[in-house]
Amino acid sequence: MVNHASEQQIYPPTLVDVKEAAALCDQIIKTPLLENPEVNRLLSCQLLIKAETAQRTGAFKFRGAYNRIRQMDVDQKKRGVIAYSSGNHAQAVALAAQICGTSALIVMPDDAPLSKIVRTRELGGKIVNYNRATEVREKVAERIQAERNYVLVPPNEDRRVMAGAGTVALELFNQIDTLDAVLVPCGGGGLTAATAIVMQALSPKTKVYAVEPELFDDTRRSLQAGERLSNPKGQATICDAIMTDTPGALTFPINQKLLAGVLTVSDDDVRYAMAFAFEHYKIVVEPGAAVGLAAVLRQKIDIRDKAIAVIATGGNVDAAVFCSALNAKAEES
Amino acid sequence: MVNHASEQQIYPPTLVDVKEAAALCDQIIKTPLLENPEVNRLLSCQLLIKAETAQRTGAFKFRGAYNRIRQMDVDQKKRGVIAYSSGNHAQAVALAAQICGTSALIVMPDDAPLSKIVRTRELGGKIVNYNRATEVREKVAERIQAERNYVLVPPNEDRRVMAGAGTVALELFNQIDTLDAVLVPCGGGGLTAATAIVMQALSPKTKVYAVEPELFDDTRRSLQAGERLSNPKGQATICDAIMTDTPGALTFPINQKLLAGVLTVSDDDVRYAMAFAFEHYKIVVEPGAAVGLAAVLRQKIDIRDKAIAVIATGGNVDAAVFCSALNAKAEES
Repeated sequence: MVNHASEQQIYPPTLVDVKEAAALCDQIIKTPLLENPEVNRLLSCQLLIKAETAQRTGAFKFRGAYNRIRQMDVDQKKRGVIAYSSGNHAQAVALAAQICGTSALIVMPDDAPLSKIVRTRELGGKIVNYNRATEVREKVAERIQAERNYVLVPPNEDRRVMAGAGTVALELFNQIDTLDAVLVPCGGGGLTAATAIVMQALSPKTKVYAVEPELFDDTRRSLQAGERLSNPKGQATICDAIMTDTPGALTFPINQKLLAGVLTVSDDDVRYAMAFAFEHYKIVVEPGAAVGLAAVLRQKIDIRDKAIAVIATGGNVDAAVFCSALNAKAEES
Repeated sequence: MVNHASEQQIYPPTLVDVKEAAALCDQIIKTPLLENPEVNRLLSCQLLIKAETAQRTGAFKFRGAYNRIRQMDVDQKKRGVIAYSSGNHAQAVALAAQICGTSALIVMPDDAPLSKIVRTRELGGKIVNYNRATEVREKVAERIQAERNYVLVPPNEDRRVMAGAGTVALELFNQIDTLDAVLVPCGGGGLTAATAIVMQALSPKTKVYAVEPELFDDTRRSLQAGERLSNPKGQATICDAIMTDTPGALTFPINQKLLAGVLTVSDDDVRYAMAFAFEHYKIVVEPGAAVGLAAVLRQKIDIRDKAIAVIATGGNVDAAVFCSALNAKAEES
């Protein structure tokens, strides 16, 4: 049996890797950068929304999964891939596997949004459920891995996955090269780190901030402590896409070195941002993808006269959750 | 007093007019063209969505209003503009007037969506209400016009307004020049006619279809009869943006000459399309803007192996209406 750990490339991508991913990933959609001049006037800043909601499978995760899986050799494709994910990475891996002619087994928590489970199945992914409260997803994946010899596609901890994610930032820079700041939703920290790497290389004056749910602020606390800390068990947030336990071993040192800071927002801030995006940008942003916009609207940093981009990382949200966010804003205003 | 009718240019635009509008209307947003390869595979066609939801004021109407108002002279700007509209043209005129340094008075039905009324006010528009069941909006506007000497900005019946609307089609052609068909939501018929003019000039093999709510099918019946027919009074549809009485005097002969046909869809078809756009394109499409997508999903024309664009003309919809559409789809599936 192949030792699958050796198939991973646990070191950071460079700008060259990101550019190569952008050049070779012909299946990736170049997503729109949205701007509403009336909102800009209201906020006294230039606010740009990088709408990864328009990416294939409805989230940026397709970029990393596809850039990893397209580089598998014939033998690896015969074995198939395995991934663990609360939903967006799951759909991304399922589609990328389908495109590249291999099979995908996904380990998903049983409380993942229904739409994400259904869409993963529709894309040909086989699903194994686990209980988020009592089991650790890496352990479940490892157990299955020991039985069958799949190629693991991690959501963050791989150079090729991160290089794919970095194409978001490369595209963003090509769309606007005068940014004062980029705000990135932060779960495992892969997109955040990849964005920081790209911006450091192309636009070092652009500050990169991670944004977390206030009850899942592991990256914020870890940066303060200088070591990787976990979130307490049993916390809840509507930001299902970024409910990770701990900063990644690969991503954390990069974020430690390159980030301008970490911002946190409440679930109420997130609901307000989702409703704001509905009203002013006419897009569907899922909770975990709305944290950047929420941080801007709640002025967690000084936005005045600044050019600020937020990455709206995905739009995979059940109708009931979306509508409850719209109702919450109606009650607030 | 100036005879304001003489200020209108009641003749159709040419491609040159549309190109001039595109070149000079620097305030217009070039809107994204969205494509979902997984949906394409499902439908066995290439489906493109021209997302005018991302246009300023959330609808294509800004293009026409701005192209008209920017051409007003100093004396006209001193007088201010008047318009009648159920909402999207209202917001468009209010913003264009603000940008161009003039004032706007809008005649709106008292059953217009609340969000459209609120947004029009926020953009500095003064609103006069009328009752859609008992009054005719043109008469109300004329009465006010007789008292105050405003410049009328019609929603369709003006060369400059139509040329502005035509920039949607020009942009669309520049984004994809291999279209078999374009489906255009049809109220007064201005965008439909402008699209037909542009496509005839640039891509004569591209068929242009108008799409109407089945209970507001005045253009369909008028084309059949060879004369302009009205809709019966008292009908209702959720497609508030395209609830017009009669095809326009300027737009009808153009549509008569250039359209490939008129398609109709039910309110249920529209709700399904809104939910489909939420799920697969992550955008907010208002009812009157979803008729094109609805016609494709209900296969009102042969779509197999065709490249088809639908113009999603706007996204100004109250949260309650939007969520009821999402719920309707959940019950259907």
